[in-house]
Amino acid sequence: MRPSGRQPEQPRDVRLTRHFTRHAEGSVLVEFGDTRVICTASVENKVPPFLRGEGQGWITAEYGMLPRSTGSRMGREAARGKQGGRTVEIQRLIGRSLRAAVDLEALGEHTITIDCDVIQADGGTRTAAITGGCVALVDALNFLVREGRLEKSPLKQMVAALSVGVYQGIPVVDLDYPEDSAAETDMNVIMTDQGGFIEIQGTAEGAPFVQEELDNMLVLAKQGIEQLFEIQKAALAE
Amino acid sequence: MRPSGRQPEQPRDVRLTRHFTRHAEGSVLVEFGDTRVICTASVENKVPPFLRGEGQGWITAEYGMLPRSTGSRMGREAARGKQGGRTVEIQRLIGRSLRAAVDLEALGEHTITIDCDVIQADGGTRTAAITGGCVALVDALNFLVREGRLEKSPLKQMVAALSVGVYQGIPVVDLDYPEDSAAETDMNVIMTDQGGFIEIQGTAEGAPFVQEELDNMLVLAKQGIEQLFEIQKAALAE
Amino acid sequence: MRPSGRQPEQPRDVRLTRHFTRHAEGSVLVEFGDTRVICTASVENKVPPFLRGEGQGWITAEYGMLPRSTGSRMGREAARGKQGGRTVEIQRLIGRSLRAAVDLEALGEHTITIDCDVIQADGGTRTAAITGGCVALVDALNFLVREGRLEKSPLKQMVAALSVGVYQGIPVVDLDYPEDSAAETDMNVIMTDQGGFIEIQGTAEGAPFVQEELDNMLVLAKQGIEQLFEIQKAALAE
Amino acid sequence: MRPSGRQPEQPRDVRLTRHFTRHAEGSVLVEFGDTRVICTASVENKVPPFLRGEGQGWITAEYGMLPRSTGSRMGREAARGKQGGRTVEIQRLIGRSLRAAVDLEALGEHTITIDCDVIQADGGTRTAAITGGCVALVDALNFLVREGRLEKSPLKQMVAALSVGVYQGIPVVDLDYPEDSAAETDMNVIMTDQGGFIEIQGTAEGAPFVQEELDNMLVLAKQGIEQLFEIQKAALAE
Amino acid sequence: MRPSGRQPEQPRDVRLTRHFTRHAEGSVLVEFGDTRVICTASVENKVPPFLRGEGQGWITAEYGMLPRSTGSRMGREAARGKQGGRTVEIQRLIGRSLRAAVDLEALGEHTITIDCDVIQADGGTRTAAITGGCVALVDALNFLVREGRLEKSPLKQMVAALSVGVYQGIPVVDLDYPEDSAAETDMNVIMTDQGGFIEIQGTAEGAPFVQEELDNMLVLAKQGIEQLFEIQKAALAE
Amino acid sequence: MRPSGRQPEQPRDVRLTRHFTRHAEGSVLVEFGDTRVICTASVENKVPPFLRGEGQGWITAEYGMLPRSTGSRMGREAARGKQGGRTVEIQRLIGRSLRAAVDLEALGEHTITIDCDVIQADGGTRTAAITGGCVALVDALNFLVREGRLEKSPLKQMVAALSVGVYQGIPVVDLDYPEDSAAETDMNVIMTDQGGFIEIQGTAEGAPFVQEELDNMLVLAKQGIEQLFEIQKAALAE
Repeated sequence: MRPSGRQPEQPRDVRLTRHFTRHAEGSVLVEFGDTRVICTASVENKVPPFLRGEGQGWITAEYGMLPRSTGSRMGREAARGKQGGRTVEIQRLIGRSLRAAVDLEALGEHTITIDCDVIQADGGTRTAAITGGCVALVDALNFLVREGRLEKSPLKQMVAALSVGVYQGIPVVDLDYPEDSAAETDMNVIMTDQGGFIEIQGTAEGAPFVQEELDNMLVLAKQGIEQLFEIQKAALAE
Repeated sequence: MRPSGRQPEQPRDVRLTRHFTRHAEGSVLVEFGDTRVICTASVENKVPPFLRGEGQGWITAEYGMLPRSTGSRMGREAARGKQGGRTVEIQRLIGRSLRAAVDLEALGEHTITIDCDVIQADGGTRTAAITGGCVALVDALNFLVREGRLEKSPLKQMVAALSVGVYQGIPVVDLDYPEDSAAETDMNVIMTDQGGFIEIQGTAEGAPFVQEELDNMLVLAKQGIEQLFEIQKAALAE
Repeated sequence: MRPSGRQPEQPRDVRLTRHFTRHAEGSVLVEFGDTRVICTASVENKVPPFLRGEGQGWITAEYGMLPRSTGSRMGREAARGKQGGRTVEIQRLIGRSLRAAVDLEALGEHTITIDCDVIQADGGTRTAAITGGCVALVDALNFLVREGRLEKSPLKQMVAALSVGVYQGIPVVDLDYPEDSAAETDMNVIMTDQGGFIEIQGTAEGAPFVQEELDNMLVLAKQGIEQLFEIQKAALAE
Repeated sequence: MRPSGRQPEQPRDVRLTRHFTRHAEGSVLVEFGDTRVICTASVENKVPPFLRGEGQGWITAEYGMLPRSTGSRMGREAARGKQGGRTVEIQRLIGRSLRAAVDLEALGEHTITIDCDVIQADGGTRTAAITGGCVALVDALNFLVREGRLEKSPLKQMVAALSVGVYQGIPVVDLDYPEDSAAETDMNVIMTDQGGFIEIQGTAEGAPFVQEELDNMLVLAKQGIEQLFEIQKAALAE
Repeated sequence: MRPSGRQPEQPRDVRLTRHFTRHAEGSVLVEFGDTRVICTASVENKVPPFLRGEGQGWITAEYGMLPRSTGSRMGREAARGKQGGRTVEIQRLIGRSLRAAVDLEALGEHTITIDCDVIQADGGTRTAAITGGCVALVDALNFLVREGRLEKSPLKQMVAALSVGVYQGIPVVDLDYPEDSAAETDMNVIMTDQGGFIEIQGTAEGAPFVQEELDNMLVLAKQGIEQLFEIQKAALAE
Repeated sequence: MRPSGRQPEQPRDVRLTRHFTRHAEGSVLVEFGDTRVICTASVENKVPPFLRGEGQGWITAEYGMLPRSTGSRMGREAARGKQGGRTVEIQRLIGRSLRAAVDLEALGEHTITIDCDVIQADGGTRTAAITGGCVALVDALNFLVREGRLEKSPLKQMVAALSVGVYQGIPVVDLDYPEDSAAETDMNVIMTDQGGFIEIQGTAEGAPFVQEELDNMLVLAKQGIEQLFEIQKAALAE
C-alpha cells in the first residue's frame, strides 16, 4: 500500500500552467502533486564560447530550490557561494534531456536557458522539471518563429520524464517524498513522444536490483510517460 | 500622468496569500501589482554565534531573484558564486526592518529566517518583501505559541514598507518599474503600525531633492502604508 | 551629556590632508576626530562594460577597513575571500553619492575609482569617506584638465556627508563610536553644497522615530554639513 | 569495425597494480587500456556531521583529472577555485557505487575516502575508477582488520563497472575515447559480483535508444563485468 | 650611479613611528624612503587548531596593499575574492621571520597577528614590513607583560630585513622601485640582532649570479641590517 | 647518521622517466627516492594578457599534491575551492626557475605550462619538480622544432635543483621527509648547468644559521646538482 493511497501504476495529478510569469519567452508552473517547479525558458542571441562560429544553437538548464521548499530549511546556495553536487547533477541531466528535443542546427545561433526553480518539493523535482521545462521550451521556440527569427520551430520531439522505483518490493511510478526516502531502488526515465529513451538513471538505494525488476519498472515508466505527453499536448493546445 | 494610469497617492493592488507553500512555519505570496515575492519564515532552535548564551533570539532575512523574474535574464547568483551588492543591501534592509517587529528577548533562543524570493519583478520588490515578510513572521511566531514553545507571541508591532518618489516632478507612491527607472528621487519608507519610522532611505537618482519634496513624499508614504496595515490585518484575520 | 563632552550640534574636528600618498591622481587623508580614512581617486581611460560606447564616464567606490582599525581585530576580507555585507552596502552608498557630484557626460570615457580605506575607526567612517572622497575626486578631475584630457572640470557640485542621531533622547551630530553603539536612531545625510539632499538613510536602532525627531535631525545635519563644505573649500584652496 | 580492432564484446586489457603508492591504506593503479587512474583509499577515525552518533561508517569518493591527462590541457580545478559539473557528477557516482560494497554499520565510526585521480584519459575513467577503487577499498578494510580496529571485514560484495554503448549501430563494451566521442548511446553499468545492478546510467547522445538496444547493451555489460570480477579476484590474491 | 643618488651601501632613510593607530596592541608606521607600511600587532587569547593543547603560542602575518599604493591601481583582493600569489608568498615570509623572534612556548596560548598594509609602495615592502612588524610585535609582547598575562617578554631576539641586489653590475642595498624593476639579481636577507640568518631569498631576475656576487651582497646586507637594529632600538627607547 | 643511512653529500637515487603519459608534449616521471612527481609540459599558441603583442613567449608552472601523496590525507584543493599558500609559493618558484632556462623572445608567442603533480611525497618535492620539469620542458621545446613551429630550440641552459640542510649539526644534501621535519636549516638551491645560481632560498627552521654553515651548504649543493645535470643529460640522450 502506497502512503498516498495511489495504485502502483498511478502517477500523481500533473498540472501545467503556461504563462505563469510574464517576462520569460516560456514560463510554466509544473505540479506533480505537491511538487511545484517554476520553469522558464529564456532566449539569447548568442552561443557559449565552445560553439562560436559553428552555426548551431544551444539548450542549457539551471536548477535551484528555494531554501524552504523542503521540510527543513536548506542553506541558500548563493549565500554559501557554490552550487551543491546534487544541484549540479540535476541541472546537467535536465540540459541533456531537453537538448534531445531540439534540432540544434535549425535553432541557429541562439541559446535557450531553462531555469527550473523548485518552490515546493515532495519528490520527483527533476522529472517534473524536465516535463514542465519541455513545455516552456516549446513556447520559447514558438516565440522565435512568431518574431520572425526562425522560419519554423526546430522542435524534433517532445520529452517527458517520470520516476519509477521499487517500494516495499513492488514497482511503483512517480514516487513522492515518503516513498522516495524509503525506496529500495529509484530510477528516472526520460523518453521522447516517439517511444525512445533519452536517459535512464537507475540507482539501488538498498539492495541491488535485478533484470526482472528493471524490466517491470520500465514497463510502468513507459505507461506513465504516455500520460505525461497527453497532458503536455493539452496544455500546449490551450 | 503615471504610466499605469494610477493617481499619485494610489498604491497598486496588494494581495497577500498565506500558506502559499506547505513546509515553512510562515509562507506568504505577496503581490504589489505585477511584483510577486514568495516570503517564507523558517524557525530554528538556535541562534547565531554572536548571540550564544545571551538568552535572546534573532530575525534575519535573505533575498533572491529568480533569474528570469526580470525583463532580461540575470545570471544566477548561486552559479556565479556570490550574491551581488544589490542583493546584500536589500536583505540587510529586510532583516533590520523585521527585527523591529519583535521583542527579541521574549523570542528566546530561536532564529527566524525570512526568505524573500522574487518570482516576478515590476519595481518595489524590497517593500513588497518587507510587507509580506512581516505576515510570514507573524505566522511563524504564532506557530511557536501553538507548539507550546513560547507562551505568547513576542510580536511588538506590525511593520510595512512602501516606496515613494518624484516622477516627472510629482510625488507618487509605490513606483512600478517604468516609473522607478525614470524617477528623479526614490525613497523607501518602512514604518510600524503605531506610526513610527523604522527606516527611511531616500536617494536622488537625478537632481538632488529638497526638504519640501521630502516632506511631501513622507505624507504620501504614511497614507499608503496605513492601507498596507489594513491589508495585513485582513490577511491575518482569515 | 555626550561622552566626548561635545555640544549636540558640534561635529568633531575635521581635517583633510591632500596629497597624502604620491601615486594617486587624488589622495586625501580625512579625519573626523579619531576616525581616519585614506581616500584615493584613480583615473582610468575606460568605462565598465555596461557603458561602452555610451560616450559618458563613471564614478565608482570601494571601501575597506584595515583588520585592526577597530577595537578587536576583524578578519581580513581578502583572506576570507569575500567582502562582507556592510562593506558592500557602504561602498555602494559612497559611489552613488559621489556620482552626484559630476557631470558624467562631460567626464567622457573615463572611470574614476574612489578607494576609501579606514586605518582607524571611531564611528562615521562612511560620512568621512564621502566627505574626503569628494576632495580626492576634485583633485583627479583637475588632473584630467591639467593633462589636457578634459577642457574643463566636469564637477557639478561638492558633496559632503554627516551622521546625525538620537542619543539619550537628544538629537546630536557626527556620532563617535560610543554614541553610535548606544544611539536610538542613526541617520546618514549626504548633501550638495547647493543645499539639496543626495541621500538620506535613517535607521531606528531601538524605538522607532517620529516626524519631529526626523525634522530636528535634518536641521542639525544641514548646519553641520555647511561646516564641512567650508573645510573642503579651505583644503582645496591650499 | 572498432577503431581499436577489438570485438564488440571485448573489453580493453585491464590491469590492477596494488600498493602503487606507499602512504594510503589502499592504493591501486587501474588501467583500462590507455586509461590510467590512481585510486587510493584513506581511513579516518571519524564520520561526517550528518552521521555523528549514528554508530555507522561512511564511504565517499573524490575524482580529479591531472590537467594534461587529456589531449589538450584542461584548467586545473584547484586554480579555477571550483570543481566542474562533470567532476561532481562522477565523484558522486563513484561514492554511491562503492558504498554498496560495504556494510556501513559493521564499518563502525570510520570514514573511507576513495580518491580517484586520472593521470591519463582514454575514455571510461569513471568505470575504471569504480573497478580499481573497489580493490583499494578492500585493502583499506583489511587494514582495519589487521590493525585490530575491526573484527572482520565489513565487505558485503565486490563492485565493478563497465561502459557499453551503441557505436555505428552495433552494441560494444568498454568504449575508448574515439568510440566514446562518436557513440550514439553511452551507458555505464555498475554491478555486484552477485549479479545485481547498483546503478545504470544510459544516455542517448544522438538518436534515442529503444528497449532492444538497451537489452543488448545489458547482456554485453554483464559478460564484460564478470571478467572484471575475475581480474579483481586475481589482483587481491597476489 | 643609483637613480636616487645613494651610495651602493646606503639604505634609504628609515623611520619607525610607534603608536601610529590607537586600537592595536602594537602599531607602527614603517617608512623605508617612500615605501610606507602600517604594521599592527593584535593579541588573541587562542591558538590555531593545529596547536590546541600544545601549550605554546603562535605568530602569524597577513599582508596587503591598498589598491592605489602603486603607480597604477591594482584590483582590490577582497573584491576579486582571493589573495594573489605574491601576497601569499610575502605574508608567509613575514610570518616565518617574526616567529624566529619569539620563544613560542614562553608566549603561552596566545596568537599574535601582524598585519602589514602597504599604503605607499616604492620597492622593499616585505623588508620594511618585517623590520617594522618586529617593533609592533615587541610592543604587543610588552603589553602582555604589562597586563600581567605574561611574567616576562618571550622576545628572544630582534629581527630585521633588507634587500640587496645587483644593479648595473654593482651590488647595492635597499633597492627602490626603479632599481628593483631593473636589477639583475634581487635578494632579501632576514637576520637576527645576534648576527644569524633567519632567511635568505636570492633570485636571478636576468642572468644567473655567482658565488662572488652572493658573498658581496651578503656583506652589504649585514652592514645595512646593523643600522636597522639601531633604528629599532632607538624607536623602542622612546 | 642520516635516517636513510646515506652519506651527508649523497643524494637519493634519482630517476627520470620520459614519455610517462602520452598526451603532453613533454611528460616526465621524476623520482628522488620515494618522492615521485609527474611533470608535464603543455604548449599553447598564445600568451597571457600582460604579454600580448610583445612578441615573446612565457613559461609558467602549476603544482599540486594528490590528496594521499602524504602520510595523512590532505583535503583536495579543488574541493576546498582554493590553492593553499604553500602550493602557491612552490609553483611560483618552479615557474621562475624554469623561465631562466629559456630565451623567451626566441620562444615566440607560445606559452608552456609545466604541471607538477606529486603522487608520492617524501621531502624535496619542489626540487624534484624543477629537475624533472626542466626535462619535460626540453621535450616540449624540441616538439616545437620538430613541428616546424620554431627553427631551433630556445633552450639557453639546463636548470636543476636540490635541497640542502643542517641536520643534527651536519650539512646534508637532498633531505627526505624524516630529515626535513627535523632539520635546523633548510635551503633550496636552483642552478644552471653553467654554474650560476637561479634562486637560493634558505630558511632557519630552528636556530639561525651563520655564514660558515651557508658556505658549507652551498658547496654540497653544487656537488649534488652536478650529478643531477648528468642524470638529465642521460635521460635526454635516450
